[in-house]
Amino acid sequence: MDTTLLTINNVWMMLCTALVFFMHLGFSLVEIGFTRQKNAINILFKNVFIISIGLILYALIGFNLMYPGSFIGGVMPDYFINLFGLSLPENGLTPAYASGGYTYYTDFLFQGMFAATAATIVSGAVAERIKLGSFMLFTLFYVGLVYPIAGSWQWGGGFLSSLGNQVNELGETIKEAGFYDFAGSTLVHSVGGWAALIAVWLLGSRIGKFRKSGKTGALPGHNVPLATAGVLILWLGWFGFNGGSVLSAEPGATSLVLVTTCLAAASGGLTAFMVSFTKYKTYDLSMFLNGILGGLVGITAGADQMGITNAIVIGAVAGVIIVFGIAFLDKVKLDDPVGAIPVHLFCGIWGTLAVGIFGKMASWEQLGYQVIGIVAVGIFCLLTSFAILFTIKKTVGLRVSKQEELEGLDIHEHGMDAYPDFRLNQH
Amino acid sequence: MDTTLLTINNVWMMLCTALVFFMHLGFSLVEIGFTRQKNAINILFKNVFIISIGLILYALIGFNLMYPGSFIGGVMPDYFINLFGLSLPENGLTPAYASGGYTYYTDFLFQGMFAATAATIVSGAVAERIKLGSFMLFTLFYVGLVYPIAGSWQWGGGFLSSLGNQVNELGETIKEAGFYDFAGSTLVHSVGGWAALIAVWLLGSRIGKFRKSGKTGALPGHNVPLATAGVLILWLGWFGFNGGSVLSAEPGATSLVLVTTCLAAASGGLTAFMVSFTKYKTYDLSMFLNGILGGLVGITAGADQMGITNAIVIGAVAGVIIVFGIAFLDKVKLDDPVGAIPVHLFCGIWGTLAVGIFGKMASWEQLGYQVIGIVAVGIFCLLTSFAILFTIKKTVGLRVSKQEELEGLDIHEHGMDAYPDFRLNQH
Amino acid sequence: MDTTLLTINNVWMMLCTALVFFMHLGFSLVEIGFTRQKNAINILFKNVFIISIGLILYALIGFNLMYPGSFIGGVMPDYFINLFGLSLPENGLTPAYASGGYTYYTDFLFQGMFAATAATIVSGAVAERIKLGSFMLFTLFYVGLVYPIAGSWQWGGGFLSSLGNQVNELGETIKEAGFYDFAGSTLVHSVGGWAALIAVWLLGSRIGKFRKSGKTGALPGHNVPLATAGVLILWLGWFGFNGGSVLSAEPGATSLVLVTTCLAAASGGLTAFMVSFTKYKTYDLSMFLNGILGGLVGITAGADQMGITNAIVIGAVAGVIIVFGIAFLDKVKLDDPVGAIPVHLFCGIWGTLAVGIFGKMASWEQLGYQVIGIVAVGIFCLLTSFAILFTIKKTVGLRVSKQEELEGLDIHEHGMDAYPDFRLNQH
Repeated sequence: MDTTLLTINNVWMMLCTALVFFMHLGFSLVEIGFTRQKNAINILFKNVFIISIGLILYALIGFNLMYPGSFIGGVMPDYFINLFGLSLPENGLTPAYASGGYTYYTDFLFQGMFAATAATIVSGAVAERIKLGSFMLFTLFYVGLVYPIAGSWQWGGGFLSSLGNQVNELGETIKEAGFYDFAGSTLVHSVGGWAALIAVWLLGSRIGKFRKSGKTGALPGHNVPLATAGVLILWLGWFGFNGGSVLSAEPGATSLVLVTTCLAAASGGLTAFMVSFTKYKTYDLSMFLNGILGGLVGITAGADQMGITNAIVIGAVAGVIIVFGIAFLDKVKLDDPVGAIPVHLFCGIWGTLAVGIFGKMASWEQLGYQVIGIVAVGIFCLLTSFAILFTIKKTVGLRVSKQEELEGLDIHEHGMDAYPDFRLNQH
Repeated sequence: MDTTLLTINNVWMMLCTALVFFMHLGFSLVEIGFTRQKNAINILFKNVFIISIGLILYALIGFNLMYPGSFIGGVMPDYFINLFGLSLPENGLTPAYASGGYTYYTDFLFQGMFAATAATIVSGAVAERIKLGSFMLFTLFYVGLVYPIAGSWQWGGGFLSSLGNQVNELGETIKEAGFYDFAGSTLVHSVGGWAALIAVWLLGSRIGKFRKSGKTGALPGHNVPLATAGVLILWLGWFGFNGGSVLSAEPGATSLVLVTTCLAAASGGLTAFMVSFTKYKTYDLSMFLNGILGGLVGITAGADQMGITNAIVIGAVAGVIIVFGIAFLDKVKLDDPVGAIPVHLFCGIWGTLAVGIFGKMASWEQLGYQVIGIVAVGIFCLLTSFAILFTIKKTVGLRVSKQEELEGLDIHEHGMDAYPDFRLNQH
Repeated sequence: MDTTLLTINNVWMMLCTALVFFMHLGFSLVEIGFTRQKNAINILFKNVFIISIGLILYALIGFNLMYPGSFIGGVMPDYFINLFGLSLPENGLTPAYASGGYTYYTDFLFQGMFAATAATIVSGAVAERIKLGSFMLFTLFYVGLVYPIAGSWQWGGGFLSSLGNQVNELGETIKEAGFYDFAGSTLVHSVGGWAALIAVWLLGSRIGKFRKSGKTGALPGHNVPLATAGVLILWLGWFGFNGGSVLSAEPGATSLVLVTTCLAAASGGLTAFMVSFTKYKTYDLSMFLNGILGGLVGITAGADQMGITNAIVIGAVAGVIIVFGIAFLDKVKLDDPVGAIPVHLFCGIWGTLAVGIFGKMASWEQLGYQVIGIVAVGIFCLLTSFAILFTIKKTVGLRVSKQEELEGLDIHEHGMDAYPDFRLNQH
């Protein structure tokens, strides 16, 4: 193993880890920006809780559960998480990958930052009406168990990763096609998105969102500048999310990934803006912002597989999906305050399919494997999130009281006001 | 070519690219912070539009136009932007520079992030009164054509880069002096600044800015904390803007550049604060912030050429320029809400001249070449920006209606309010 | 010396420097978020002043004073700060450390970013009532002299660093135990914390904080979202603060440091939330946030010495300290608006002690040296900060007038309002 290359790879992966960590600020700002002032503290609390508990759970359970793909086991605990011995694990610097990889510490932290993301996606969709304690309970199970189990199927060497494996005459495993999800359009974003869908359905819509008259009520977010800042921070974070998913600093792959990621984001935003302008005759900043996020989620499954044009096309389709996806959710009366479901679920599915359409291995067979992966993860997430959330609903309850919802969760659950110095409008 | 060195250089350049991307959040926050609440969404929309369209245009036109300096052509398209073939450009990892450089993908993305900056500078100066559609039209031409053409003159091997070239008796090209602009005091900041000047002149001042009584009206920005955050984010981004302009991770040059950049920023801020305190007897945070930005723009042309003291002096002069520049614009009744012209144009000119005064090649001859570069780029930008903006003014129009300006562009163009939960003061 | 390794180390250190710089935005947002709207500009002004003057002072005095440990002298000035010669110091790229280190320029900038931190810590504690000019005067002395002198005792090769040195029979210096402060729980955070304690005591509490009735008045911060953003930015910055304190990119050490840092932060936040929930029956976001910061300060002294469990335990204890520390300060009627003293002083002391309890060299002897270091630095900082602040109090005065405090420092010292477009509540 080349020490110098190990050092470079490790530097790159650590900085990508920092960028993915920073995405949690991005999510926080998007979520509070697109919701009302009276619930801002509640949402911020959920977000700092998620990243904190996410890392601790990933150290205690998730990392071992996800890699090497076997339930609580494998070789890693022996030399990595020496949890009950209060001594320094001496060989934590053992590189995670054979030739010039990076350390297990870096591997843990990079993957740990991903783990918390799934719950953050749900957080936005259920904003302004879920009980804090119930959400925290859900997070424990979803981040601690569901995310790493689903992840282990592909990234931990599980059954999804062996789809399409064939043995040739020499007894070697070869692969012409198989499920591919570069940085997690399905394994991260859809995992969050499916649970968001179930949660929004079980919770019901916010008071005032869907009026008896059949009209959709306007419940505008309270701080568009912070939402915009959040989206730009998420875009920045995606440099690490996708760039780090190369799992090395290999120059060709990492720089291609950054180019496709940025072009898809740009294309997604521009397309969502243009489509929504055509449809609604207004320059809708929220659509532009969600289009950027949709483009980012869309490119995530195949960021290393695409050329310039592919990336622009994938982003553009994601932008269209955003505009019609948001309209569709309103039509079926599912209340997703921040657009988490169109961004992470719909564009997550699109991005995963796009690998079978535009990727280097594009073929009908490849597309079939992509569908298998989407469906397998989807069924698992739908079942587990339903089981967790339905149990919570029937026991401690999911939704705050009507009075609490009207007056705001901040005062009721936190005894605080996000901006006590400012007078508020009633609406 | 050394793979290891290529990898390190590429990591550095990719992270600098991420930092330059992040500057777009900085610009957004500075611009909304220093303007009124009723136009915040409009300004944010312009900024996310600029970075998105900027990257797409740079992929389609700009990159080829700017490098290698010939109009739509050269060798790059063959192996980089395989735009209409939906396949992965196999050799995009071909390093951009002969010995241990970085990949063309990285080169494209780093330069693409720069391209959008020119339009962003204009965005601040024309805030609160320009028609959104007209501004977007201007951006298409200025980012798609003007910026890359001006850039090609120096960075693409054009005529500015060959100024001062001499042939010695052996037939080799030698150079004792010549136009030098390290990271773009002229080629980025002034390019934006000249257009800002023309735009502000053609647009006229905001209602209430220059009163009949001869007094300058106070139109204070609505969110100073966000403006401050924006300036600190821009300073951070300048680590990448100047640090990446070394075009490698060479330790001596990159670290010198970061030191001179930070010292000039600090010195610019402190000087602007002290001069404005002496002049106006108040601790003016806006002056401090614009002084920091002025120092950053000032050092940009010669960040790799200066020692500690030079950097501090260059920043200090920039700080003085900011205070008197802002007063001067008020005097000649040019309304630049965020101070974009003093920061980017005046300090851009100063920084370019400073290379001839303090730089390693400082001489009267060198100073002369600096003036030639400033004037050549200035004339080109004045003419092109006038042509574009005057045509727009005479056709679709540049300025929103009086009613729209008074009530705010957010409600009229976007049908949204940046902070709907908060009551507003009238002023 | 290996050029390649030098380049990698230097890239890592430069990016860590950028992250530590970014902490100044984190501090700014935490401080304004947790205080009232009427003093926001004043606090922002202090913060941009601190980072600016901090860098300039560190170039002029601090760097030479702190390294190599002798007062104004040593070898460094000869080839680094060629302050009065306006030429480029040619050999600034001389690596700072013998084998594959990084350049002196990088060393200067990384250390310079640290230097300003001490004053920033004080800034939060004295918010809303200190005279701006007096604070700036204090900063000059504390950042210019006190911080580098205290730092030189350990990091500059001074007496603290030689504690526990023994000479063996071969005449070689060996060391079984000695004062250890990896990234500055004592040398940075406590240095700020002790001065904060003296300043808060000399200043007195804000009007309305401690009522005659014996009840503690609620003076809630005005912008909790910005405070939360600040804490997440600080956490991000700590990747550089602790990660860069390895002083190389050595993969095992740097990645371990990031893991312990993040786990301590997470654990600190969760514990502070749970303890405060038990104590006060409310989900207190401020406690969660300060718990995160406490965990970060706590791990700072031994981030390279700890295993997974140790980091979680150190963070948890820090979380407990935060909750009881804040209650304790209220009890003894010391008014620290942002919790700077519990975070930086109490957790700084805890973190330094933890090295003697959990670190690789943990022993009673090691614990004793940790106490010596804490006490030595504490006495020095208490005496010097008292001398500076008491002199200021008796001459120009420390505290603003009652009218200014009630109406806000922003209007009186800056003639500006942070959010002029928004109506305010009176409280």
